[in-house]
Amino acid sequence: MTQRDWAAYSGKPVLVTGGLGFIGFNLVRALQAAGAQLGVLSRSWPPRPGSVESILGGVSFFKGDIRDSALVDEAVTGRDVIFHLAGKSGPVASNASPLEDLDVNSRGMLTLLESCRTLNPGAKIVFPSSRLVYGANTEMPATEAAPTAPLSIYGIHKRAAEEYLLLYQRLHGMRATILRITNPYGPFQRPDQNRYGIINWFIHEAMHDRPLTVYGKGAQLRDYIHVDDAVDAMLTAGLAPEAEGMIFNVGSGRGVSFLEMAEHVIRSAGRGRVKHIEWPSDAALVETGDFIADISLIAERLGWKPAVRLEAGIEDVIARYGKIFES
Amino acid sequence: MTQRDWAAYSGKPVLVTGGLGFIGFNLVRALQAAGAQLGVLSRSWPPRPGSVESILGGVSFFKGDIRDSALVDEAVTGRDVIFHLAGKSGPVASNASPLEDLDVNSRGMLTLLESCRTLNPGAKIVFPSSRLVYGANTEMPATEAAPTAPLSIYGIHKRAAEEYLLLYQRLHGMRATILRITNPYGPFQRPDQNRYGIINWFIHEAMHDRPLTVYGKGAQLRDYIHVDDAVDAMLTAGLAPEAEGMIFNVGSGRGVSFLEMAEHVIRSAGRGRVKHIEWPSDAALVETGDFIADISLIAERLGWKPAVRLEAGIEDVIARYGKIFES
Repeated sequence: MTQRDWAAYSGKPVLVTGGLGFIGFNLVRALQAAGAQLGVLSRSWPPRPGSVESILGGVSFFKGDIRDSALVDEAVTGRDVIFHLAGKSGPVASNASPLEDLDVNSRGMLTLLESCRTLNPGAKIVFPSSRLVYGANTEMPATEAAPTAPLSIYGIHKRAAEEYLLLYQRLHGMRATILRITNPYGPFQRPDQNRYGIINWFIHEAMHDRPLTVYGKGAQLRDYIHVDDAVDAMLTAGLAPEAEGMIFNVGSGRGVSFLEMAEHVIRSAGRGRVKHIEWPSDAALVETGDFIADISLIAERLGWKPAVRLEAGIEDVIARYGKIFES
Repeated sequence: MTQRDWAAYSGKPVLVTGGLGFIGFNLVRALQAAGAQLGVLSRSWPPRPGSVESILGGVSFFKGDIRDSALVDEAVTGRDVIFHLAGKSGPVASNASPLEDLDVNSRGMLTLLESCRTLNPGAKIVFPSSRLVYGANTEMPATEAAPTAPLSIYGIHKRAAEEYLLLYQRLHGMRATILRITNPYGPFQRPDQNRYGIINWFIHEAMHDRPLTVYGKGAQLRDYIHVDDAVDAMLTAGLAPEAEGMIFNVGSGRGVSFLEMAEHVIRSAGRGRVKHIEWPSDAALVETGDFIADISLIAERLGWKPAVRLEAGIEDVIARYGKIFES
C-alpha cells in the first residue's frame, strides 16, 4: 500500500533468505522495485507455474536449505545487506517438534553467521525476531527492555538467534539489527502457510463464507502490523548505521482485541461469521495474554513509524484478495 | 571433604548423564555412597584401566551419546531423579565451534527432555547451568534476576537450556531445577579436561613447578566453589519440592581476585610461580569482569550454604593431588 522511495538500494547487492515466504516475498518485491541487485535463497523455488515466477526476473536464485553451508557460502558472498528470513514459523508447531525447530532455526541461523564471518563479515544482517520472545504478564506496552521469557521453543530459538547476532557483532565486528515483529498481515500469504498470519487466515475464511474461530471471548489484545510497514522497517534497518547492534520492536503500537479484528474482517468482507470455541490446550499454553508493542525506540532512533491503519489494511487485502491471496 | 547424610537417596533410581566428567564423577560418588540405584550415561566408558572403574561397581552404564535418543530413552526410564550433566564445556571453545556446541548441548538437552516427556514425565530433572549466562557489567553480587546477556555460544545455549526446562515444566508438568554454578574446583578433574577448572589447572601446573599464567593484573574477582558444595546443592535440589521450577545461583558468595587465588595455590603447593601475560584476544572477548554470586535465594529456599572455604579447599586438593588428580 505504501509507496516509499528506496533509491539507496538501487544496484546494491542484497540477499533475502526465505524470500518466498510471506514477509520475504513482500520484501523481495520492494527490493526489486528499488532496483536492488537481488539474491534469494529459498527451498521453495520454483513456485507453482504462472504465479510469482514471472515477477522475479533478474533475481539470482539459490535453491536449497539454509542449513546447507556450501549453498549459504555462495549466497552471502559479496552482499552488502542480508535479510535472514529463512526458517520455520509457529509456536504451537515448535512445541510439538522441538528438535526440528532447533535444526531449522538455530542451526540455520548459525550456518548463516558462520558463512558471513568467514566470507563476508562486513555485511549488514537484518533479522526478524518476534514478540514471542516476551513472556506472559509483561507490562504493556512492552519495551525492548522487558524481560524475555518465551512460552514456546520457537520463541526460545528466536531469542537465542538474537543473542547469536549480538555476540557475532561483539566477537567478530559484524553488524546486525534485530526487529521484534508483532502480528503481521497483508498480501502474498501463501495458502500452504495459512496459519502464519491470523488476519490473513480469517480473510481467507471469511471470503469463503466460513466461520472465523475465536478462542474464548477473544478479548486478548494484539498488535497487528501490515507487512508493508514491517518491510519498511527492515529496509530502513538495512541502511541505517544507528540500527547496528540494536533490538527494535516493530508493531503498530495499538492494541486491538482478537474479536474486534475478526468482526472487522467480517464487516469488510461482507461474509463470514464469528464462532466462539473453548481454548484448545496447546494454544492456551502458549497464549501470552494481551500484547502491545512500545515502538518509541525505533521511532526515535530510525524515524520509522507504521503508516497503515488496521481497518484500511484489512480492506486493502480483501479488495485484492482474489488476485493475490491465492497466487 | 564434607560428609553429609543423603539417606533419602538410598535405593532411589537416579540417572547421571555425563557421570564421568568433573562434577559428574563427584556427584556419582556421592550418590553411590548414599546407596542410590545409580545409572550413568557417558560416552567415555570404560575409563582407563585401573582408575575409576573399580569404584563404580553396581552402577548401570549407558555407554553412548546424549544425542542418541534410543539410548537416552532407555536410560531415563524409571528414574526418579535425573542429573543432566552431559555436554561440552568452555566458552572460548564454543565461540570457535558454535555448531558443535549447538549440536551437543542444545540438541542433547532437547533429546533428554523429549525422552522424559514421552517415557518419564514425572522425573525430577536437575541441570547445572552457569554464571556465564550473565553479561558483563552485571551489578555484584548478581542475583538470579540479573539480566542474562551471554558472551559466548556456550552461555547462550545454557540459557536456552534453562528456558527449555522451564517451558517443559509449564507445558508438560515436568519438574526441573536449574543451578547456575560459578567456578567449580576440587578432586577428580580428568587431565584431558584440564582447562575446565582454572584452580585445578593451576594446582596441576604448580605441582609440576611450572608458571601459572595470569592474564593482565589478575584483578578480576571470581566466585570459586568447591565441587563438594556444588554436589551438595544438586543433591538438595533433587529432593526438594521447593526447588521445582526454580533457578538458583550456586557459588561461595565471596569474590577472590584471580591473582590472589593463584598465589594461594603457589603458597599451598610450595611450588610454581605467577607469570603475567597480556590478555589473549579470544579470552578478553568472553571476559565478564568481576563476578560474585548472590546466594541468598538458595539459602532461604533450600537451606543450602557452601561449607568449604577456598583456602581449605585448595589445600585439600593439593594434599590429595598425587592420589586423585591423575587417576
